[in-house]
Amino acid sequence: MKAETRDRVLRAAERLSFFPNALAKGLLAGRTGTVGLLTSDLEGRFSIPILMGAEDAFGAGKMSVFLCDARGDAIREQHHVQALLSRRVDGLIVVGSSTNPRTSLGSDLPVPVVYVYGPSEDPADLSIITDNVDAGRQAVDHLIATGRRRIAHISGDVSYSAARDRAEGVTTALTEAGLPLSGERVMFGSWSESWGRGATRLLLERAPDTDAIVAGSDQIARGVMDALHERRVDIPEDIAVIGFDNWAVLATNSRPQLTSVDLRLEELGRLAAQRLFEAMDGDVRHGVESLRSRVVTRGSTTPSH
Amino acid sequence: MKAETRDRVLRAAERLSFFPNALAKGLLAGRTGTVGLLTSDLEGRFSIPILMGAEDAFGAGKMSVFLCDARGDAIREQHHVQALLSRRVDGLIVVGSSTNPRTSLGSDLPVPVVYVYGPSEDPADLSIITDNVDAGRQAVDHLIATGRRRIAHISGDVSYSAARDRAEGVTTALTEAGLPLSGERVMFGSWSESWGRGATRLLLERAPDTDAIVAGSDQIARGVMDALHERRVDIPEDIAVIGFDNWAVLATNSRPQLTSVDLRLEELGRLAAQRLFEAMDGDVRHGVESLRSRVVTRGSTTPSH
Repeated sequence: MKAETRDRVLRAAERLSFFPNALAKGLLAGRTGTVGLLTSDLEGRFSIPILMGAEDAFGAGKMSVFLCDARGDAIREQHHVQALLSRRVDGLIVVGSSTNPRTSLGSDLPVPVVYVYGPSEDPADLSIITDNVDAGRQAVDHLIATGRRRIAHISGDVSYSAARDRAEGVTTALTEAGLPLSGERVMFGSWSESWGRGATRLLLERAPDTDAIVAGSDQIARGVMDALHERRVDIPEDIAVIGFDNWAVLATNSRPQLTSVDLRLEELGRLAAQRLFEAMDGDVRHGVESLRSRVVTRGSTTPSH
Repeated sequence: MKAETRDRVLRAAERLSFFPNALAKGLLAGRTGTVGLLTSDLEGRFSIPILMGAEDAFGAGKMSVFLCDARGDAIREQHHVQALLSRRVDGLIVVGSSTNPRTSLGSDLPVPVVYVYGPSEDPADLSIITDNVDAGRQAVDHLIATGRRRIAHISGDVSYSAARDRAEGVTTALTEAGLPLSGERVMFGSWSESWGRGATRLLLERAPDTDAIVAGSDQIARGVMDALHERRVDIPEDIAVIGFDNWAVLATNSRPQLTSVDLRLEELGRLAAQRLFEAMDGDVRHGVESLRSRVVTRGSTTPSH
């Protein structure tokens, strides 16, 4: 970069206060401010928000996160780890391809590692995840608070801990409220709109008095809403719908817009970056740290929106 | 990495033939095999497939692409460029946030740069893009080939060259076939499902005999299909629908599945990586190189699927 360009950029940065606060200054001292993010996310849907959160942890423009995609391949992952380490990254953030526990990268790496979204199988590692049991509970609490009493749960692939954990939260919250699960059992299937459609048709035959459906993901929720529209069921008047993920493309374009449990991916990334830099300073943590999700309310559960 | 782990990985790699062909060996000789990818993609939807294509250009496991997200911010972009250059990447791939031309990073960088998806404004740079005029033409050709004659076009924000180029291809192909544009004019709006729904309602009032709709994106197409379902119009029997992007999450989950023009993002990435390494060997190209897209046929245009 030309000296003149550099000066121009620095002046602009100064103007915009792109400078770290005292804490960030301390944590970043002597570091390169570069972190590697390993993902297997084929669309970037989960990893890009986590990347943004990590970069923003110490103020805009102080850190660069390099994302590498291993596509679920262990050999490719090792290749990327070596490429990142040989370029002196300060640490690694490993984003799971699901919330299921994943193999640890091991304890002999020269930089700290934090696992995000899906935890490491090794309790000696530090993992930062969303509490999906609590997320399921929050979905039901929101529906009860908005007057629902016959709540059903249509979810994704039961081999995913996200599906099982959310279902546990849903059923626990219902039991505590003294309410039955509409349709009697959790309907596990796949993470797709078409399963949402099919399951909703089955559910309405089995439990036609259902007044709310907790969908295991926004994709499933879109299928649920589609099947309800097909039957001219009013949303939310007759049946309210809530999803998980708060994926804007799906949640803000449905009719009505979809209430969804936000898993706070940027916050996961921000916390992961902080923990990485704390570990470099000798404050090494272990085990699983979990964040609470939050319900983003839209028209599919509250008619006023 | 422990020696034992390293050996295990190398043996596994050998078994899986993770080795470069002669061409790749030549191009990669003396390089670090690491490329930086600069994007402003807030979801990774466009940049992750381009990243994958670039990594695969020389065979699996030979290259690492580091993705940095500038989020449309010039200062953040400079920060990432410096972070990547100081880590000795072999070159840079710059992925536009749209197909509109973007500012050049300049000609004084120490490594070659290739612009992908959206071209550089500077004709001295090399840009690799999808030919969106041809993409629009292919959509119409496919509809004509499947027997449609009253074809309308609902597209996105007219300030995007992708919208204007696809519309040009659509109208040119119709003119060449001696067919009018159903609804008389291209309906530009926004890249959203809700625009697709609203525009379809307007279109069916204005031109109720429409037998096919070219939607400017898969998101718009989903809205179009939604409005058609609402009116109990059979897809594709009464009206066929085709989108652009071939975004699996949207295209394979609709009823019926959505025919879509695939912009071949992985191929753009593969070609970008090849051109980068050719440039390092002295074969520097300039200007715009464009790739043909291809129609991926599904049930929304052909009832047999």
